[in-house]
Amino acid sequence: MSAPDKKIPVGILGATGMVGQQYVTLLANHPWFEITAVAASFRSSGIPYSKAIENRWCLDTPPPATLKDLVVQDATHITEIASRCKIVFSAIELEKEELKKLEENYAHAGMHVVSNASAHRWTHDVPMIIPEINASHLQIIPEQQKNRGWKGSITVKPNCSIQSYLAPLYALIRAGYPISKIFVTTLQALSGAGYPGVASLDMIDNVIPYINGEEEKTEKEPLKILGTIQDGKFVLHTGLEISAHCNRVAVRDGHLACVSIGFQEKIPSIEETINIWQQFRSVPQELNLPSAPFMPIIYSKEENRPQPRKDRMYERGMGITVGRVRACTLLDLKFVGLSHNTLRGAAGGGVLNAELMIAKHYAI
Amino acid sequence: MSAPDKKIPVGILGATGMVGQQYVTLLANHPWFEITAVAASFRSSGIPYSKAIENRWCLDTPPPATLKDLVVQDATHITEIASRCKIVFSAIELEKEELKKLEENYAHAGMHVVSNASAHRWTHDVPMIIPEINASHLQIIPEQQKNRGWKGSITVKPNCSIQSYLAPLYALIRAGYPISKIFVTTLQALSGAGYPGVASLDMIDNVIPYINGEEEKTEKEPLKILGTIQDGKFVLHTGLEISAHCNRVAVRDGHLACVSIGFQEKIPSIEETINIWQQFRSVPQELNLPSAPFMPIIYSKEENRPQPRKDRMYERGMGITVGRVRACTLLDLKFVGLSHNTLRGAAGGGVLNAELMIAKHYAI
Amino acid sequence: MSAPDKKIPVGILGATGMVGQQYVTLLANHPWFEITAVAASFRSSGIPYSKAIENRWCLDTPPPATLKDLVVQDATHITEIASRCKIVFSAIELEKEELKKLEENYAHAGMHVVSNASAHRWTHDVPMIIPEINASHLQIIPEQQKNRGWKGSITVKPNCSIQSYLAPLYALIRAGYPISKIFVTTLQALSGAGYPGVASLDMIDNVIPYINGEEEKTEKEPLKILGTIQDGKFVLHTGLEISAHCNRVAVRDGHLACVSIGFQEKIPSIEETINIWQQFRSVPQELNLPSAPFMPIIYSKEENRPQPRKDRMYERGMGITVGRVRACTLLDLKFVGLSHNTLRGAAGGGVLNAELMIAKHYAI
Amino acid sequence: MSAPDKKIPVGILGATGMVGQQYVTLLANHPWFEITAVAASFRSSGIPYSKAIENRWCLDTPPPATLKDLVVQDATHITEIASRCKIVFSAIELEKEELKKLEENYAHAGMHVVSNASAHRWTHDVPMIIPEINASHLQIIPEQQKNRGWKGSITVKPNCSIQSYLAPLYALIRAGYPISKIFVTTLQALSGAGYPGVASLDMIDNVIPYINGEEEKTEKEPLKILGTIQDGKFVLHTGLEISAHCNRVAVRDGHLACVSIGFQEKIPSIEETINIWQQFRSVPQELNLPSAPFMPIIYSKEENRPQPRKDRMYERGMGITVGRVRACTLLDLKFVGLSHNTLRGAAGGGVLNAELMIAKHYAI
Repeated sequence: MSAPDKKIPVGILGATGMVGQQYVTLLANHPWFEITAVAASFRSSGIPYSKAIENRWCLDTPPPATLKDLVVQDATHITEIASRCKIVFSAIELEKEELKKLEENYAHAGMHVVSNASAHRWTHDVPMIIPEINASHLQIIPEQQKNRGWKGSITVKPNCSIQSYLAPLYALIRAGYPISKIFVTTLQALSGAGYPGVASLDMIDNVIPYINGEEEKTEKEPLKILGTIQDGKFVLHTGLEISAHCNRVAVRDGHLACVSIGFQEKIPSIEETINIWQQFRSVPQELNLPSAPFMPIIYSKEENRPQPRKDRMYERGMGITVGRVRACTLLDLKFVGLSHNTLRGAAGGGVLNAELMIAKHYAI
Repeated sequence: MSAPDKKIPVGILGATGMVGQQYVTLLANHPWFEITAVAASFRSSGIPYSKAIENRWCLDTPPPATLKDLVVQDATHITEIASRCKIVFSAIELEKEELKKLEENYAHAGMHVVSNASAHRWTHDVPMIIPEINASHLQIIPEQQKNRGWKGSITVKPNCSIQSYLAPLYALIRAGYPISKIFVTTLQALSGAGYPGVASLDMIDNVIPYINGEEEKTEKEPLKILGTIQDGKFVLHTGLEISAHCNRVAVRDGHLACVSIGFQEKIPSIEETINIWQQFRSVPQELNLPSAPFMPIIYSKEENRPQPRKDRMYERGMGITVGRVRACTLLDLKFVGLSHNTLRGAAGGGVLNAELMIAKHYAI
Repeated sequence: MSAPDKKIPVGILGATGMVGQQYVTLLANHPWFEITAVAASFRSSGIPYSKAIENRWCLDTPPPATLKDLVVQDATHITEIASRCKIVFSAIELEKEELKKLEENYAHAGMHVVSNASAHRWTHDVPMIIPEINASHLQIIPEQQKNRGWKGSITVKPNCSIQSYLAPLYALIRAGYPISKIFVTTLQALSGAGYPGVASLDMIDNVIPYINGEEEKTEKEPLKILGTIQDGKFVLHTGLEISAHCNRVAVRDGHLACVSIGFQEKIPSIEETINIWQQFRSVPQELNLPSAPFMPIIYSKEENRPQPRKDRMYERGMGITVGRVRACTLLDLKFVGLSHNTLRGAAGGGVLNAELMIAKHYAI
Repeated sequence: MSAPDKKIPVGILGATGMVGQQYVTLLANHPWFEITAVAASFRSSGIPYSKAIENRWCLDTPPPATLKDLVVQDATHITEIASRCKIVFSAIELEKEELKKLEENYAHAGMHVVSNASAHRWTHDVPMIIPEINASHLQIIPEQQKNRGWKGSITVKPNCSIQSYLAPLYALIRAGYPISKIFVTTLQALSGAGYPGVASLDMIDNVIPYINGEEEKTEKEPLKILGTIQDGKFVLHTGLEISAHCNRVAVRDGHLACVSIGFQEKIPSIEETINIWQQFRSVPQELNLPSAPFMPIIYSKEENRPQPRKDRMYERGMGITVGRVRACTLLDLKFVGLSHNTLRGAAGGGVLNAELMIAKHYAI
């Protein structure tokens, strides 16, 4: 895949929030994209980006100097933003129905919306993409455009909680080992709750064994991602059941998942499992997308890995680390998976989605 | 149960370690027991207790003033210790075979050993007791004494990782709902690793998804506890399979367990489950033992509980808090359990075992 | 001091907030007081207390059962509250001028207001009390009542940041060693910022070297507390200069202060300093007030103490622990002080103030 | 300064420890140096480096692949190591007198020892270098070599606790504002204690207000660094007094210092102070050394900065961030300083020292 002839102008909706800050950081020096619009709610608009994020910047690296003077636009001024960019990354926090409508309006105005939000995840003609798993789901885009009379489009990414183990499971499925049962307990990082998110008084010397809505998403979203398209609609994957427990722990970044799986028929050996993971390459690697991890899944041999702080930055936060594969008493195999929830699991995943759309000619 | 006529003299092996410090604290004002001996390895012996724990005391409450001048004895000087006490609480860290031998020598010398260690957990005539579950297993003591020619005895308690959910599961079994499958992921506290234990550099902003030997214990020990005695030997409980993932998290005290269970036959409703737990009373409550929680299991209705810091001290750290009972996609029910790992799960559990032995006339 | 004949009815303004929760907890079983009113902003009023604190209770002990059904009143309904109680503890969060007015209205309605807020700390006829230091400042109350035509009164307590070292310094001053210079760096706990307060993303693996307004309060409030009353007005203590650095650290409760002091004239030896502290008793001890620590200042001999988690609960959180007294290269002595910021430093301090007022017949 | 013609072979003593791991990481791709020897105590020697660090690697980035098979040598086999390298970085943990001797033996064998240890800090002809402050102190090296009959040399770096503020203070002194008094309270990171270092049970929800030996070093070492050489000996800087409080906090990396300073004569304005810091460049910048920060001191305008997690990686961990300059009630100015304790404060500082020696032709 060669790069686009010239940089593609992009905008970020919700650019002042935590995920928006990640987008801004990842896109500031991106080889294919150029930030031409940053938008937020009315309240934060009309002032330079540097001003809008004052006392709200929560990343450890400073904001990109190039955006300092870019004036934040009101995200509802769609025509104005449409005149400036082709793709918008949606990370704005709005009530669900309102956000749905807003993203649709952007698509209607000709922009390709790549969304982090859950609003459109279950819309029948909107693809929910993890590029290593279901790049082919982008095929629904022309159908979506036809249905709606849009020149633009809407694509979403799934919840961050499933990114630490779904690609490893897909790698096994693709290698001929269909899976029928998944038990997963997640230990999720604080950044997943946004900023300010969880109060420090609730996290020091503590665990919170509950994240609103997370278990439902964890149990259902994989069925759409692993599903197929029939007659212009998504058909959910069948024969797979998932049970999830989701916990919040005192970790800054990196969602960890303890996973037990049962196979439908034959069971790979531990050695074969590891081998399948280490060899796994998929569409983003074949297309050599700028944000694609070279080796999307790495297996750590040390008995006490992966660990959030030590493994979350593998492949610039875009790779997945797995470890501790062993037999499960009740199902077939157990393992631990980890990925960076605001890179692979949020902004990084969104950027990779956009790159995939460009490379596959679904956008621009 | 009325209290013994006069206080029973007891000793603590490994009194300078973390669990030993908990024993010392719990026993210093105990209505039935009186500490007459504190013992440790040769290295720490021959000096007053206050000196021996200097810079090693790791509890948040200060050491009991009454023990200040008690000279720490060499734990291998059994005859001397036997002349002073009837019961010894074993919390000494030794290589497994060495410890086995030492505990046997104490029993041989006429003392009743109540051990926290794993050394004798799988010895065929040694009971592994959680008083609310298998108080009846103490019946093997006369057999044990006959086999070995001992006047004393050895009783052990199980690993701390299973205490957060085994009594709630037993309550359901006892109420007529036998269980066939348990999936459990534990989020375990730092104090479970002793002192100094885990390095702070490994725990700040991190999770360690591995605890040496813990998953094996979690999967096997319940089978002995729920088992029966036949022909003077323990027969493991059958028809139950357990699969465990064990993690270390940045929490001081309190092991949390995310549990999914499948029943053998009929399934209690959520309402009935909660009711069984709240109504659950067992031998320690009937005997009104000094360390027994009045209501051993409490159900927390708030959707984000139990939490280690908020719930670990329920019933002075001797009760178990459960919450979030809900349907499980793969098995039947899911819930979260929590107990204090160094109180209920270690020293407190040991003291309760000793109280049970006294009340049931197996010791003294 | 004998207890009042019958319990005195008290109210709590801001009863649903964090400090309010501490008040409720401390007063639920108080020998002298009885909670007859809990009040909050309009938004939280009109519902039972148990409902009002749902998902907002942030203490580790559960809310007192006795208050469950007490309906939360609108704090602006002063007449109604006045018909029910004699003393109100003010811990409500309001804009400064609004709060000033509200507290004045309560005093006007005949109630004795004991306030945690800073609104009236610099009002010329309002005493700012640490009972061990300036109990005599209550003498201004009759003057205050005359000035304002009040039957009630307003008394305030100082900021939590100065409680870890001001009583120890006063003990030295009272013993004949006037102090001219104080250098203090505080390491303050999260609960000092209220709930939700500091975001966990800002505190994991971090320190925040700034607390809004805290350094100013730390440098000025001691001058009023150590001051005198002349012609019905407070005259600030002179000859003392304080320089403060205030930091927020990842500790739940317990403010720690690193202090260097210079004396005006003669300098006590280290031994004498420790002796003065250990011997220190003052008005609350003489009056044997229910919340008074028996020994208000304790000196810890261990070289690495005081530590927040280990020492904050000394004397039920009402005592101060000092340690590490040593020579200072620049001034005369250095030491470390610690106190519990929401007990001694907030609600506990307020309750002690109210007890003092009762015992000294300034209220009731 | 142009790079050396070919890479200089270097060794690391104590290569398996925490600081040693930092050295290995920094030197693996260094433009001037090539690691040709890794040495440790006898216990860890004779095996490949990858084996020696198994379960001991404590950095978040993986060990450099290039060193995997390099066999760890016994650090006492000096001749063997001398045959392989010209410079050795000493980060080995030994008893003080033993280490002194070992470092001398290396110098005697012709190697230039750049040491992190405190053993030789007070040796009269050994320079203690912070390259931005006292590069000129390397002039003592020929004297040292003559005195001892060495072809090699010994150079040391100071304690990590003073790096967060000494360069900013030196910048002011150099600009004509001599300083007479320094009050400093440090909040130091866990990595400063090495690995395993502080127990997590001591750091969760806690602060330890004591670090063995740290306050003494903080108060004395600046006097040598700011001193002069007279008659081949170091003469301490006079007219400056320092008072230090040192605390350990739950932060992984980054020492923070709260500093108050008094000037000897004239006092710079706040604006001038900031300007002096931002303009400050010194020898490493002039020589364009590979590890030199381009702008060694940066001033952060945000009111709550510097913060360890957000600012420690400024200039790859080699720069110093200062903030909150304001007037001090007792002295003249207050500010907060921060630097990365294992980069600028340990291995990075050592590498910069070695680069300086090469550039100034004191080594090789």
